[in-house]
Amino acid sequence: MSLDVAVVGATGYAGGEILRLLLGHPAYLSGELSIGALMGASSAGQRLGALMSHLPQLADCVIEETDISRLGNFDVVFLALPHGHSARVAEQVGDDTVVLDCAADFRLRDAHTWTKFYGAEHAGSWPYGIPEMPGHREDIRQARRVAVPGCFPTGATLALLPAVQSGLIYPDVVITSITGVSGAGKKAAVAFLGSETMGSLKAYNVAGQHRHTPEIAQNLNEFSQEPVTVSFTPVLAPLVRGILTTATAPIREGISDAQIRESYEKFCAKEPFLHLLDPGQQPQTQDVVGSNMCQLQVQLDEYSRRLVVTSAIDNLTKGTAGAAIQCMNLICGFPETAGLAQAGIAP
Amino acid sequence: MSLDVAVVGATGYAGGEILRLLLGHPAYLSGELSIGALMGASSAGQRLGALMSHLPQLADCVIEETDISRLGNFDVVFLALPHGHSARVAEQVGDDTVVLDCAADFRLRDAHTWTKFYGAEHAGSWPYGIPEMPGHREDIRQARRVAVPGCFPTGATLALLPAVQSGLIYPDVVITSITGVSGAGKKAAVAFLGSETMGSLKAYNVAGQHRHTPEIAQNLNEFSQEPVTVSFTPVLAPLVRGILTTATAPIREGISDAQIRESYEKFCAKEPFLHLLDPGQQPQTQDVVGSNMCQLQVQLDEYSRRLVVTSAIDNLTKGTAGAAIQCMNLICGFPETAGLAQAGIAP
Amino acid sequence: MSLDVAVVGATGYAGGEILRLLLGHPAYLSGELSIGALMGASSAGQRLGALMSHLPQLADCVIEETDISRLGNFDVVFLALPHGHSARVAEQVGDDTVVLDCAADFRLRDAHTWTKFYGAEHAGSWPYGIPEMPGHREDIRQARRVAVPGCFPTGATLALLPAVQSGLIYPDVVITSITGVSGAGKKAAVAFLGSETMGSLKAYNVAGQHRHTPEIAQNLNEFSQEPVTVSFTPVLAPLVRGILTTATAPIREGISDAQIRESYEKFCAKEPFLHLLDPGQQPQTQDVVGSNMCQLQVQLDEYSRRLVVTSAIDNLTKGTAGAAIQCMNLICGFPETAGLAQAGIAP
Amino acid sequence: MSLDVAVVGATGYAGGEILRLLLGHPAYLSGELSIGALMGASSAGQRLGALMSHLPQLADCVIEETDISRLGNFDVVFLALPHGHSARVAEQVGDDTVVLDCAADFRLRDAHTWTKFYGAEHAGSWPYGIPEMPGHREDIRQARRVAVPGCFPTGATLALLPAVQSGLIYPDVVITSITGVSGAGKKAAVAFLGSETMGSLKAYNVAGQHRHTPEIAQNLNEFSQEPVTVSFTPVLAPLVRGILTTATAPIREGISDAQIRESYEKFCAKEPFLHLLDPGQQPQTQDVVGSNMCQLQVQLDEYSRRLVVTSAIDNLTKGTAGAAIQCMNLICGFPETAGLAQAGIAP
Repeated sequence: MSLDVAVVGATGYAGGEILRLLLGHPAYLSGELSIGALMGASSAGQRLGALMSHLPQLADCVIEETDISRLGNFDVVFLALPHGHSARVAEQVGDDTVVLDCAADFRLRDAHTWTKFYGAEHAGSWPYGIPEMPGHREDIRQARRVAVPGCFPTGATLALLPAVQSGLIYPDVVITSITGVSGAGKKAAVAFLGSETMGSLKAYNVAGQHRHTPEIAQNLNEFSQEPVTVSFTPVLAPLVRGILTTATAPIREGISDAQIRESYEKFCAKEPFLHLLDPGQQPQTQDVVGSNMCQLQVQLDEYSRRLVVTSAIDNLTKGTAGAAIQCMNLICGFPETAGLAQAGIAP
Repeated sequence: MSLDVAVVGATGYAGGEILRLLLGHPAYLSGELSIGALMGASSAGQRLGALMSHLPQLADCVIEETDISRLGNFDVVFLALPHGHSARVAEQVGDDTVVLDCAADFRLRDAHTWTKFYGAEHAGSWPYGIPEMPGHREDIRQARRVAVPGCFPTGATLALLPAVQSGLIYPDVVITSITGVSGAGKKAAVAFLGSETMGSLKAYNVAGQHRHTPEIAQNLNEFSQEPVTVSFTPVLAPLVRGILTTATAPIREGISDAQIRESYEKFCAKEPFLHLLDPGQQPQTQDVVGSNMCQLQVQLDEYSRRLVVTSAIDNLTKGTAGAAIQCMNLICGFPETAGLAQAGIAP
Repeated sequence: MSLDVAVVGATGYAGGEILRLLLGHPAYLSGELSIGALMGASSAGQRLGALMSHLPQLADCVIEETDISRLGNFDVVFLALPHGHSARVAEQVGDDTVVLDCAADFRLRDAHTWTKFYGAEHAGSWPYGIPEMPGHREDIRQARRVAVPGCFPTGATLALLPAVQSGLIYPDVVITSITGVSGAGKKAAVAFLGSETMGSLKAYNVAGQHRHTPEIAQNLNEFSQEPVTVSFTPVLAPLVRGILTTATAPIREGISDAQIRESYEKFCAKEPFLHLLDPGQQPQTQDVVGSNMCQLQVQLDEYSRRLVVTSAIDNLTKGTAGAAIQCMNLICGFPETAGLAQAGIAP
Repeated sequence: MSLDVAVVGATGYAGGEILRLLLGHPAYLSGELSIGALMGASSAGQRLGALMSHLPQLADCVIEETDISRLGNFDVVFLALPHGHSARVAEQVGDDTVVLDCAADFRLRDAHTWTKFYGAEHAGSWPYGIPEMPGHREDIRQARRVAVPGCFPTGATLALLPAVQSGLIYPDVVITSITGVSGAGKKAAVAFLGSETMGSLKAYNVAGQHRHTPEIAQNLNEFSQEPVTVSFTPVLAPLVRGILTTATAPIREGISDAQIRESYEKFCAKEPFLHLLDPGQQPQTQDVVGSNMCQLQVQLDEYSRRLVVTSAIDNLTKGTAGAAIQCMNLICGFPETAGLAQAGIAP
């Protein structure tokens, strides 16, 4: 019997990427998985073809009004909604339905922090969907709900976790993450017009103001002996997809380049979506476009005695929709890599 | 037993795209198809990972020196070489091996034209690999060699063929095709630096000088009662992948918008890789990135009494490597769409 | 005594470009010209620095509510308003004030056509601000009001006028103009987000639907013996500034490449903002960014017996604000080139 | 009598930008300054129009073979040569001629460091051309030779100098600077093709390997009580012009946001090319394209107790050619801002 899937918020960028990945998923192609409903808000009643012309197979599907009370009828529900809407879903949908939430609602464990950054009451926390974090793959497999991670936290966590966990660095990390504009979503705004973003670079929400800062800190603290301090500077760059993260932290005395490399090699070994590049090669976002990979490089700066690590992901794939599919695969018993490309669309 | 495949010219953009598509092909994933050799010239001896970091699965494969004498050992050979190298392959490789040539060597049937545009002796012609051209699908299925079409001719032919074939227009067509820079290939040249191409538009090889002009004319003449005259203006635009073709021709007296639409609907019906958009919607290249689709729109300009047709393809996929895989599928008995996405990477 | 200037619609892209050019104008730098008022609608009350941070000299200027009744107090008024607002200005502002209207209100001479394309009553027509059109420079010099031309009509008219005027072609012209996204203006819209426009190409308002079609036809007909038919296809491309126009028309019997070239050389001679490139060189939009130049190339396609002409302009400079300043210079007795760069910002 | 200027290395990006600025310089426009020679190497004998079509005024100038022995005949010489060629110039050209060197040869004062990073013998050091560094404006005014600073050091120095000089931070700075591709120069290389750079982000020369690292350190140490440690990560982004620098350093105990702001306000006051944005506004590179400005923002991150400062410059203008012209203006007695725009080309 076929697994019936609903996508709520189907016409945003995250929703569209979930649909793109589902359409290429072997379970969909073999009929084991079906796309049962596309739900939306302002787009309800329209044909998908008028809104997402890159998905010709679904051109004639009509967007339905979001109806949370119906979600319990589906086997898997992807939520691609603005922050703050998922608590009601959690209340109304039983555990027979797998819920994969791409919003931030259930990512943070600390209620105070959630309220400070999102300005509303904390709804709780769900298993956090980065299977590459030690212990998480097993948790996700058992879960019926997953908080799909933010895009910046995915790139930053995978970049720094091996160093933090192995205690090679002092936990005072400085991160600059440069992102494509699709991270801003599909809503009309002058600041994200092509005229304002092509050919320009701009930092934003600097100095600890970006909502992903506490999420990065939570992830790193989960594996750190000492509390981690995070300085996080996001930068908007003129590309559509991709996040390049550069991160640095002071290295502890006596630690060598070889030790650092070994900890990263160990972390990446057997992980299908982590690729530690050869020494001297740097990750580039182009190489992961449309793929679920995180490419990584790590190096010791002898001069400043700092670790320098870089990672590249596609913010819409590994950073959002790909992570959601990866979690669905784990929960539903598909191969973890099913429907998720390792090769990027380059050039 | 597994089909053994070689890619010659593996480290150029066409070669890389063939590899990307093979890696996602169901026959590769199931073990029915294997990538037996990656051959190159200047890159021989290097790991693929150092040259094409978007293909992590093949990072440790080493490029071998191109050796035509060995190609007969493979079941399928993809040639992604500069123009003028394929004749020797044709001579040395027997019909047990399927040869898919991405170069122009065997595309033109007229020896004089070939020599005029390519400056060497004509090596002959092979079945031409646009399965959507009436009769071609059957020819390709029977073939052991295919001339994979040029990128501009693919977009222009699919845009104009229904109108030409149905005799709705006077065969005096004006085409402006705007292309991404990957069409220029992966060779160092000041004119194609990021600094010279980002943020800039430039026509080139105008006034009948582009080599794809006679290929477009040959394709249209194959289905035209009267000789077709082609005015072709290519333009380089600041994107990596994609060709948008705008084409126009005078409409014959008494022809209505409905008749035009009907001929295009009939042409696109049942074609998995053609998508005629709803009236009022225009193809955009973003929607076909990484996919094998050609999106189309057609309209009658009542004021100038001209047909206006537009098409969008990914020059590296439907325009080159995807077409090659599509032909391989037909010849080798795989489903025609196997390993070829219909959904594009958007946004 | 200093010339007092007001800019109405100061915070849109056209308004911003007028300000940028005024700030570099020798008359402004010497104190002969002052910027007396910046007027806006929704932006009224804000500091310019919060809206147009590229103009640091004016950061502390506050936008005033648009007040047409005050415009008569200024010597020169630039109107950078949406279409349909200029008639009221014409009524209320006396001839002591020079009015340069960047909207379409007074461009078309035919009332019926205006109403068909702009959906309102025709307000009349003003001298048309392309000084390079024979006779126009003199008219502009005498005028107190000028209809600043549209961006596409500027590129297309300058490309085709020499051929039309000299009767070298049959007046059945096919134009494809490719534009940067700043032409869409500074208003929030999903279709013009960076995510939707970077890396993508898309035609729009094809088949005679674009409002600039009749303006192009009017300009060419002014110099043609026979009525000109215009097929115009605009394409949106991933750059901010620039329009590349490709135009073609059937050449009359017996016309040679030399005759064509001569007519273009004659047309461009002594024109400070026209530059006919050497044979073989093609205009590129990068070369005219921020400048008031129109670069041109023309060629005979012997094969299709067509003229192929290409032009490059910056849509915000020569295509809008630069043209307005050029007209101001003519009217106010400044050197025609004052404050207008001939060199573009390249790369 | 007119000042006679030569540009050596005229056809690279730095050379082209020097020419563009000279062509708009009031002294050139009034005839007080003339461009006496354009010298090049591989381009010698060609018309400038064939190489730099954005400078139509100079289209017919012919590039001369670089001849150092002739440079003493000019009043001002701009050197835009690869690193390592300037020592010979220094030897052969007398002090009657002002020499402005855009290469790195005379920037570093420490011979050992120079040799380590540039791999040759140190030729000495010249006054360093950032007039905004305390004391430098006076030095430059008296100088006959200036080492024009590197692009990254310009953005990083101006961002961090006020904090370093006022002792507000611990001198352990982490800098990530994101640059457009024009910084890589106008030489053919696969890595800088449009296909490799558009739509992609990539760090390079990380971990202290970039040659600009010691230059940044030297500039900051000049004003620091304690030795400054610099961690510098450059990133290549898909734009042509512009560097966005993000920098952070631990703030000393008891330092407030107000104190930080005050030190930056004081530093920027009266500087024509520094613009500290209003609190909450972030610099964007688009706003400084073609201008000589450095836009700045500074903030205290209370959470991580770090200073976060950002700066935006055009790497070819303030980062190279504009700085050279600014120094020329100081030396030759022109107004410091002559020929240098404060307004950027935006959008």
